[in-house]
Amino acid sequence: MKKIVFLLSCLAIVASAFAQKDDSLFIKNLSDFILTKGQAYENLRHLTKQIGQRLSGSAGMYKAEAWGLKTMKEAGADNAYLQACMVPHWVRGGKDEATTQSGNGNKKSLDVLALGNSLGSSKPVTAKVIEVKNFDELETRRNDVKDKIVFYNYPFNQTFIKTFEAYGDAVQYRGAGASRAAKYGAQAVIVRSMSESTDNIPHTGSLRYDTAYAKIPAVAVGLQDANWLSDALKKGSISVTLSTHGKFFPDTVGHNVIGELKGSEFPAEYITVGGHLDSWDPAEGAHDDGAGVVQTIEVLRAFKALGYKPKRTLRFVLFANEENGLRGGTKYAEEAQAKGEKHIFSLESDEGGFTPRGFGLTGSDAQFQKLLSWQPLLTRYGASEMSRGGGGSDIGPLNRTQGTPTAGLSPDSQRYFDYHHARNDVFEAVNKRELELSVVNMAALIYLVDKYGF
Amino acid sequence: MKKIVFLLSCLAIVASAFAQKDDSLFIKNLSDFILTKGQAYENLRHLTKQIGQRLSGSAGMYKAEAWGLKTMKEAGADNAYLQACMVPHWVRGGKDEATTQSGNGNKKSLDVLALGNSLGSSKPVTAKVIEVKNFDELETRRNDVKDKIVFYNYPFNQTFIKTFEAYGDAVQYRGAGASRAAKYGAQAVIVRSMSESTDNIPHTGSLRYDTAYAKIPAVAVGLQDANWLSDALKKGSISVTLSTHGKFFPDTVGHNVIGELKGSEFPAEYITVGGHLDSWDPAEGAHDDGAGVVQTIEVLRAFKALGYKPKRTLRFVLFANEENGLRGGTKYAEEAQAKGEKHIFSLESDEGGFTPRGFGLTGSDAQFQKLLSWQPLLTRYGASEMSRGGGGSDIGPLNRTQGTPTAGLSPDSQRYFDYHHARNDVFEAVNKRELELSVVNMAALIYLVDKYGF
Repeated sequence: MKKIVFLLSCLAIVASAFAQKDDSLFIKNLSDFILTKGQAYENLRHLTKQIGQRLSGSAGMYKAEAWGLKTMKEAGADNAYLQACMVPHWVRGGKDEATTQSGNGNKKSLDVLALGNSLGSSKPVTAKVIEVKNFDELETRRNDVKDKIVFYNYPFNQTFIKTFEAYGDAVQYRGAGASRAAKYGAQAVIVRSMSESTDNIPHTGSLRYDTAYAKIPAVAVGLQDANWLSDALKKGSISVTLSTHGKFFPDTVGHNVIGELKGSEFPAEYITVGGHLDSWDPAEGAHDDGAGVVQTIEVLRAFKALGYKPKRTLRFVLFANEENGLRGGTKYAEEAQAKGEKHIFSLESDEGGFTPRGFGLTGSDAQFQKLLSWQPLLTRYGASEMSRGGGGSDIGPLNRTQGTPTAGLSPDSQRYFDYHHARNDVFEAVNKRELELSVVNMAALIYLVDKYGF
Repeated sequence: MKKIVFLLSCLAIVASAFAQKDDSLFIKNLSDFILTKGQAYENLRHLTKQIGQRLSGSAGMYKAEAWGLKTMKEAGADNAYLQACMVPHWVRGGKDEATTQSGNGNKKSLDVLALGNSLGSSKPVTAKVIEVKNFDELETRRNDVKDKIVFYNYPFNQTFIKTFEAYGDAVQYRGAGASRAAKYGAQAVIVRSMSESTDNIPHTGSLRYDTAYAKIPAVAVGLQDANWLSDALKKGSISVTLSTHGKFFPDTVGHNVIGELKGSEFPAEYITVGGHLDSWDPAEGAHDDGAGVVQTIEVLRAFKALGYKPKRTLRFVLFANEENGLRGGTKYAEEAQAKGEKHIFSLESDEGGFTPRGFGLTGSDAQFQKLLSWQPLLTRYGASEMSRGGGGSDIGPLNRTQGTPTAGLSPDSQRYFDYHHARNDVFEAVNKRELELSVVNMAALIYLVDKYGF
């Protein structure tokens, strides 16, 4: 008996070694294809330069959907289709402007950008500025806020190594700052941009109004101007005249763009890989999330080109409306639930088209161990750092509705908030090989999950 | 006895845990200091924007040496000084130009840059172009080479994950291509740039003439122009008129710039950390190797600012003449040998100011295990990938003369050859946090080597 167990163990080890070698070879083929015959970079060029911004409800959204569907088909999807959902339709409505005036009459124009979902005022707002470092200070000085413009000057904590930690720490001022200030009678807010870049470019992004309070104008200000304003306020009173024009049109129809490769053994088990198709209006949305979009399509394209027949059904999804509503991701999970689809794994790329470092996983301990067991296969392609907690906004609903484990590609984070939601998030800020290497790791992970289950 | 052994083991484990915690805390302090009070980025701005190119023998070299000495003192060196060495003095001598002419009379200007150390001709060279893929093809077609311009069109192998592997594979055409072609009577060579960028910027770098053959002109050509030329040659004969003006002045005196922190316990044991001060003439030398220079100074500055008293003597060295002679690194090792200095470790940063990924080590198995044992302390700061083989050109002589283990910082390599030896290697191509995070890891490694020996 002992001998049989020993022999079986030997066979298992040998079989595992062969499997590992097969996997290693297939992943090398994926890598060679993506790095030498890749289309991700040229697809990104088209999406950013020929279509450009594609905020929910905009003409760009419709163009991007049509392009996405066509490109998904060209990449070789067995089936490609649109999944409709209602999306909000916010527009900037004009040029955002802010001019300071000091006590001595000196004026200075600030580089500002209205926050997404914010409403403009019917006419320019002029008021004195009160700077607060954080919400605690706002509460302490709440009696000084009435009729003022509140300036939230909360910087990124630069001691965090991963910039997403600094973003997570600071973004509450963008999201909730306007209503917190409106509660005490502020006329508008200026928020230090969610960035730690060395330039002065403002970064937009969503706010959420609390309907209990006035929906006051809200802008992000570039970091150099934020520092200037803070210094100027130390010397004396400053008033600002602010013009913004944001407004909502009625909700409209947007679409998730979906491509499928049908599973050969377990077609009723689904694996989703995706990024979001919408982007903020001031830029081309190259890193956020054009990268995730073209990477998703490229995984499909590479599988098809190499003749890979997945065991499980693979879904390649370009999600609608991640930026200001999350209606696409929500719809996708709702329909999956309604149809009784079993989603065993989902992967999202929404942290920029930078060099790959690893994956983050929201799943069980056993699932994390499984991910770790694949680390040796991925390390040479750059995805060596596996962490707990991952998967982006668009696949979160799958996790919440049916417990699907979610993973997020983790590219290097240092440059992301230099470009995030800002006018410099353009094609030229993406490096071809960095973009492609991340695809290699995404494709390899999907291959392993498909082959071994999760 | 067993109990005593057990107790001693427990004590050792507890002591080791305390040490690990101390190390972790100190490295966190280094990180916080470098990321929030760092001067590396502003020092790089000065070096690139106020001094700029600093090729051996140029006015820039002298300015850079003076700046380096001053900055090393300001950073807190116990002792800072210049170490003289003779350096070559090559100059470009004028604008490099190449114009093609097709059979139909059409002309096109190519974006070219003479290779470093190459000699210009007294008047423009006009000749027909023969393209070869590699040296094998050159040998096969050696009878067709006479009086021609040989065009080496050997591309980077994009299937290599680390770009330095592709560079290592291709760089022989830049280094030896001119003499190999001159052997068969070629009048000049055009070499496809050592790059895999998406732009057309040519990349210079050293060649070495074989004194047995004519020292013919040699230029690097941008990748788009290389592809154009290759396509054009498929359609018919092309001649090129080439003007270059490179020449040597007599060797002159350059200097290594050295700062020291004296060891408190083992002052006769030396640890060297460095980068090279010289840079090619077409650009600002921001990644190559302004980054290594300011990182080296920043390690010193951080130790001093945190009041760290090294056990061993730390040498911070800005090496002279890495690019076209290696006279600085050679001199440093010679003097160390002559003075009987015992160099236990050396670290170089000369792969660009990008986000850190790890260290490469040239040393014994035991030394590599020691490096691996520190991986848990460094991983969170980005240096998670330890590899065998490392340490750059400038510290190689220390290894060769006294067996000093050498390590090289390995930043992410994907973007490096987009900028290497090219006019776009400018300050703006360096990201502040990426530069600083690499300093954190360099400082942490030097601290660990100093504390525990190597």
